[in-house]
Amino acid sequence: MNEKRVFNFAAGPSAIPEEVLAEAGAEIMNYRGSGMSVMEMSHRSKAFLSIFEETKDTLRRLMKVPEDFEILFLQGGATLQFAMAPMNLITRTGKADYAITGSFAGKAADEAKKYGDIAIAASSKEKNHTYIPAQSELKIREDASYFYYCANNTIYGTEWQYTPQTPAGVPLVADMSSDILTRYVDWSKYALVFAGAQKNMAPAGVTVVFINKNYIGHALPYTPVMLDYAAMVKGDSMHNTPPCWSIYMMGLIMKWVEKMGGIEAMEARKRQRSKLLYDVIDRSSLYKGCAEKDSRSFMNVTFVTGDPEIDKRFIAGAKEAGIENVNGHRSVGGMRASIYNAMSIEGTQALADYMVEFEKRG
Amino acid sequence: MNEKRVFNFAAGPSAIPEEVLAEAGAEIMNYRGSGMSVMEMSHRSKAFLSIFEETKDTLRRLMKVPEDFEILFLQGGATLQFAMAPMNLITRTGKADYAITGSFAGKAADEAKKYGDIAIAASSKEKNHTYIPAQSELKIREDASYFYYCANNTIYGTEWQYTPQTPAGVPLVADMSSDILTRYVDWSKYALVFAGAQKNMAPAGVTVVFINKNYIGHALPYTPVMLDYAAMVKGDSMHNTPPCWSIYMMGLIMKWVEKMGGIEAMEARKRQRSKLLYDVIDRSSLYKGCAEKDSRSFMNVTFVTGDPEIDKRFIAGAKEAGIENVNGHRSVGGMRASIYNAMSIEGTQALADYMVEFEKRG
Repeated sequence: MNEKRVFNFAAGPSAIPEEVLAEAGAEIMNYRGSGMSVMEMSHRSKAFLSIFEETKDTLRRLMKVPEDFEILFLQGGATLQFAMAPMNLITRTGKADYAITGSFAGKAADEAKKYGDIAIAASSKEKNHTYIPAQSELKIREDASYFYYCANNTIYGTEWQYTPQTPAGVPLVADMSSDILTRYVDWSKYALVFAGAQKNMAPAGVTVVFINKNYIGHALPYTPVMLDYAAMVKGDSMHNTPPCWSIYMMGLIMKWVEKMGGIEAMEARKRQRSKLLYDVIDRSSLYKGCAEKDSRSFMNVTFVTGDPEIDKRFIAGAKEAGIENVNGHRSVGGMRASIYNAMSIEGTQALADYMVEFEKRG
Repeated sequence: MNEKRVFNFAAGPSAIPEEVLAEAGAEIMNYRGSGMSVMEMSHRSKAFLSIFEETKDTLRRLMKVPEDFEILFLQGGATLQFAMAPMNLITRTGKADYAITGSFAGKAADEAKKYGDIAIAASSKEKNHTYIPAQSELKIREDASYFYYCANNTIYGTEWQYTPQTPAGVPLVADMSSDILTRYVDWSKYALVFAGAQKNMAPAGVTVVFINKNYIGHALPYTPVMLDYAAMVKGDSMHNTPPCWSIYMMGLIMKWVEKMGGIEAMEARKRQRSKLLYDVIDRSSLYKGCAEKDSRSFMNVTFVTGDPEIDKRFIAGAKEAGIENVNGHRSVGGMRASIYNAMSIEGTQALADYMVEFEKRG
């Protein structure tokens, strides 16, 4: 336990606050006098239900989630939501419109095509997803059941800096896997928000879904019960056994976020962290940022040197300095520093310093 | 950590070997010099891939799984398999036959009806699921795509004591959530075996699937990618981020099973544990076993006193003696002691002793 921990810039699963891990470790064999681990508890026991409710309440409080939204803790990751969203929400008109700003948005649209008439409202593909389309570029049909977008694109390092506007009656559906809990959401515009939790919220294994209750109950007839939001709401995420440990860890992390100062603090920290790195890039003659400046992500800072050999040396040298997982996604190469809520300013500063030093060293 | 742990007879999630919890706790902040928790690792990192492969290999070795079966670590529990099984396997003939021996088998059949022509091959409902139908009672169609059964019925405390025989060319599909890893499986007869892991294998959040590769690639056209065994096999359970921590814990538990002596040892232990409790029941004038003797489960011992008030006193007194979760399922009442692999002989003896003492005390 006392060995040195590294600064972990992995894109997800990713860093968890050290004090949260310590707390989980301290009670792993006997949760608060219960005589058992959280991993051994019946999901219907008082002890676990109390963990479950407190986690949900804290999340609702932190994100100011209104009462017409249900919070669900599901499984299967964002990729299962790529199917659940259309299976549950497309029946209103049979149509839905998607913005393709990266790999995951594209996968979501491909999955949705199994269930209805899907149109591409905008795509940044022609520029290799280096930017987010402007509001004026979005072509959203008036009879779309919803407009779908991926709020932050982990692979390309871009992030929507605005909440898209849609024709009257067309709600938003958003994949916020990588920037959830880093800003407030204007809930009035959304039917559905979801997030694989393994970046900003919890270890892998739980998917958080915020579903507006006015949109449930219209699933396609062949929808599996586990993919029907109405059934999940009815069972309060316990139609069957939920991923208890991941929910417990999420609860600890939510309490940490609250203690740190909530969304306001997370938002200030994300600006501070990303500025540290983008400033180095903008002052450098070695590093080039991958994303256009007005589309830059606060969560995933992507950059290259232009020479794959130098990139490789950069990554290897970082590892020696205790800075891990700064390699870019296997589909794009270069470097990527993922700086989610649990990444400290200290860790980010260490990376910024290393970047400067590496460039000087030549 | 040093407080007293209880004997936990929960039906799932359920007890985990104490030494496994201790090991997980010791390396929760820094896994073997990696500088990070397993919960923080990229699922594509060398460290995690090594955990993943070792877990799969140990499971394959323990259960003697042949090479034509793929082992998958999925999410969504057995309930999601209730849909995945027909969505992937029913297309051969459009028909499948189910034995209804309890609540979960019934739910599986109901889910399957969304995807094809489902017939009931046998049902124990008329006797409140207190027995397992004999081979001679199974009516399985010759053109069924598969015959489905639930190997152990946790709620009613019954277990199939034989491997069902089917017409030529009709493979078996079995839900082994509650008796997996307690006996060998005759793989040659199965297309698919699955198990929610939270009873005998791991904490909640991972579902283990054994799929015969000859049966994949024929999913219904509207099957979500996450529900397509072919896609899951292609991605080696990493089409998206898997439930890493639950898989890691499963690895530790698999190594514990191996160290204890493998399936042979688990089988001997299950016989020893269940005999301790059934012997008390059979010698008692207070307790009545719920299941018919030749259908009794080795995993879930269900019994009643016949008087709900006495049942209540029994359960409350057990709790005071450090024996937890011996209440029956909320749908049937009475008592249920779930004695999975991690339950010690010592713990089971403590319950047997308490049963005797409670009866004497009157």
